[in-house]
Amino acid sequence: MAIEKDSVKYLLDEANMPTAWYNVLPDLPYELDPPLHPVTMQPLRPEDLAGLFPPSIVEQEALTSPSLDIPGAVLDVYRLWRPTPLLRARRFEAALGTKARIYYKYEGVSPAGSHKPNTAVAQAYYNKLDGTERLATETGAGQWGSALSMACAFFGLECSVYMVRASYDQKPYRRALMQVFGADVVASPSDKTQFGREILKTHPDSPGSLGIAISEAVEHTVTHAGTKYSLGSVLNHVLLHQTIIGLEAQQQMEMAGEQPDIVVGCCGGGSNFGGIALPFLGPSLKTAANASAPRAIAVEPSACPSLTRGAYAYDYGDSAGQAPVVKMYTLGHSFIPPAVHAGGLRYHGMSPLLSSLHRRGLIEAVAVQQLDAFEAATLFARTEGILPAPESAHAIAEVVRLAEEARETRTEPSILFCLSGHGHFDLSAYEAYQAGRLANYELPQTDIDLALDGLPKVAEPTTGYDSTGVTV
Amino acid sequence: MAIEKDSVKYLLDEANMPTAWYNVLPDLPYELDPPLHPVTMQPLRPEDLAGLFPPSIVEQEALTSPSLDIPGAVLDVYRLWRPTPLLRARRFEAALGTKARIYYKYEGVSPAGSHKPNTAVAQAYYNKLDGTERLATETGAGQWGSALSMACAFFGLECSVYMVRASYDQKPYRRALMQVFGADVVASPSDKTQFGREILKTHPDSPGSLGIAISEAVEHTVTHAGTKYSLGSVLNHVLLHQTIIGLEAQQQMEMAGEQPDIVVGCCGGGSNFGGIALPFLGPSLKTAANASAPRAIAVEPSACPSLTRGAYAYDYGDSAGQAPVVKMYTLGHSFIPPAVHAGGLRYHGMSPLLSSLHRRGLIEAVAVQQLDAFEAATLFARTEGILPAPESAHAIAEVVRLAEEARETRTEPSILFCLSGHGHFDLSAYEAYQAGRLANYELPQTDIDLALDGLPKVAEPTTGYDSTGVTV
Repeated sequence: MAIEKDSVKYLLDEANMPTAWYNVLPDLPYELDPPLHPVTMQPLRPEDLAGLFPPSIVEQEALTSPSLDIPGAVLDVYRLWRPTPLLRARRFEAALGTKARIYYKYEGVSPAGSHKPNTAVAQAYYNKLDGTERLATETGAGQWGSALSMACAFFGLECSVYMVRASYDQKPYRRALMQVFGADVVASPSDKTQFGREILKTHPDSPGSLGIAISEAVEHTVTHAGTKYSLGSVLNHVLLHQTIIGLEAQQQMEMAGEQPDIVVGCCGGGSNFGGIALPFLGPSLKTAANASAPRAIAVEPSACPSLTRGAYAYDYGDSAGQAPVVKMYTLGHSFIPPAVHAGGLRYHGMSPLLSSLHRRGLIEAVAVQQLDAFEAATLFARTEGILPAPESAHAIAEVVRLAEEARETRTEPSILFCLSGHGHFDLSAYEAYQAGRLANYELPQTDIDLALDGLPKVAEPTTGYDSTGVTV
Repeated sequence: MAIEKDSVKYLLDEANMPTAWYNVLPDLPYELDPPLHPVTMQPLRPEDLAGLFPPSIVEQEALTSPSLDIPGAVLDVYRLWRPTPLLRARRFEAALGTKARIYYKYEGVSPAGSHKPNTAVAQAYYNKLDGTERLATETGAGQWGSALSMACAFFGLECSVYMVRASYDQKPYRRALMQVFGADVVASPSDKTQFGREILKTHPDSPGSLGIAISEAVEHTVTHAGTKYSLGSVLNHVLLHQTIIGLEAQQQMEMAGEQPDIVVGCCGGGSNFGGIALPFLGPSLKTAANASAPRAIAVEPSACPSLTRGAYAYDYGDSAGQAPVVKMYTLGHSFIPPAVHAGGLRYHGMSPLLSSLHRRGLIEAVAVQQLDAFEAATLFARTEGILPAPESAHAIAEVVRLAEEARETRTEPSILFCLSGHGHFDLSAYEAYQAGRLANYELPQTDIDLALDGLPKVAEPTTGYDSTGVTV
């Protein structure tokens, strides 16, 4: 490919698309605390997951090989939009007046509009292979539901999406997109599940939450033959599939003649941040100083600050206490974040894998207020054209802060961030921002404390964190 | 670039992006009938357009050189998303069971979501160069308004968009997108113009029309110093800027080792069809047989069939009779099409340039019913992932028909169509389709006859069509 000095886009041919995902697990210099069974609180056995996931996915959750070949049928779908472009944000840099070099990996070119299809397509493929007939899942902002609906259409699977009621009502276009792909979309809490009916009995107007929707999708799965469950973030196999983002970005940064000094991604359950950051971090994780790796900054909303204000503890993955109990940064499984316009960043917990990295100081985390996010995103749209998803806008706000920091310290860092999706379905949020109807929100510590009171009582295993010798 | 036998995407590096637009005018084997002044009905002089357009644009309207270099500042913006990808629709082909090879040029990767920025960016640049401070325009579906709003943000121009009232109410997200880019968006008919106030006096609930919105934008322009008018289709300079679509596609089809047998584009005012088709048609237009050129098929909706059922006559470009009078296929400037969900294809007339080609049999035209368009688009989304704009869906429906025709004639044509944009802002239309609320619509001939009764009385000039010797 012809690269010129002032290139804006760095494109990879599909012939140069990575053909294997990167698995960070063998590169971790410590063992992860094991997930626990939600009833027995004993370490989960693979067979405990068999009701939820097909065998191939269960295997990937604890993969030991350093990489996993991407199946040809998955590559064939990826090629519809992958490799995604890497762009140098020259016009945004000029508007900021920064000497930092800002690159962004743009995942919004996928037909579903975000990075989510990277794992949705893989999961649909493996489920089809293992004989699954229908996938059940939940969706908050709708990006994950759109991605899985599309993937199911591609591989001939039925798809049931439990969509958080508030989103279902506020984002009819997201719902309609899933329906075009042929999915069955249900507002959660719903009368389709025992858990949903119980909530509706006491809270008939419940706006729902991601935790509730997860519980309903899990219940749907275990009560329907031929149905498996699919999760769009948090778990190891999801982050595995998302590493294609960072693997491509590595090649593209090389085309630009750069190594990023800082990698930035927004962080809800962790799939986007993990996808861009892990390939850059992984190989150096085992060296003590970790000196050759870039800084990696996970950006979360101030309204749902699991990494920056949560507890590092065992907690349920869902609200109903049916999902595995995992060691992670959590705000408590009963935590319901205030209404902020970044629906994809409202999970009470965080990927256990990323949580463990953060606990050891191997990645950084910051929280961003939504007004700063929308201000940064508006400047980005007016200079680069692309309307960022509110989730991605949080990463952009941090990039703006880093550019300011670079000015003060007279440094000229190379910054890479993941623009995880576009905001075409989030314009009501932009409209609210422009009309001055959005406000910042500082979460009271009492709200967090209250939810953390409900953490399950777990006799912590002695493997894992404590065995690393890292002092925190 | 590495091309493999089964490639899906054909990507051009930005270093190989065309650096000049193609001008078809010198290649026409006849003279175009001149546009007329709306009051005197005499051939328009360049100075008559000076109130509406800056000098550089006026010059491009009657450009005599075979091409025009694209300014560096315009190239710099194009590079944010151009060259756009060309894709082989392998999964769509498989679903159709066709042996036709179907390629699509995807213009929806632009930040505004359609091909419209190709001319919006050029027009904003030339206006800035010539000292314009504000651009006024109209928008129906919102694609054009979004594109011009973005282009004005890039070049530091103010932007006033008169948005057809029906769209303004039905597509709040389109409106919000323009506002993020900083545009001033007004529902048309509005109380901002004399023409708008007159309409509101008799029809306070008027849903508006593209012709009315054009009239308001034109009135805004001539009554405000520093303001010029910008049109998103129909005119020669717009089609000139859009030829970058076809020029790129020519290179990409060569990468695929193909020459298209058939080129297909949806057609409202003509900018998308002209953009993809003219570079393929142009060089052979002067040869009598035109044998080396592909078939070029313009696809319009049955509800607004200017090319297939309109008169080839002089008519006003707008509803109020303030815009130039041009020779084109028209349904009459007072024609208001029934509500169909392809807002970009509801103009009463058609590009005079394309009209002249159609009159001489140098391009073909077909009309498509909206149910066929949405059925084709749904199949496309479920196989290729991309949700097509309703406008583009009309082109896809024609491709489906061509594939069927190929089966019957046992031919294996190579078909290239322009996927002019995505349908992220049109999901209410898809929802209506899925719910069975859309219907086909056969326009009564009496409706057309009535509107054609209002054509201006013009003593036709003897230059142009009559001088070509072509019998029609």
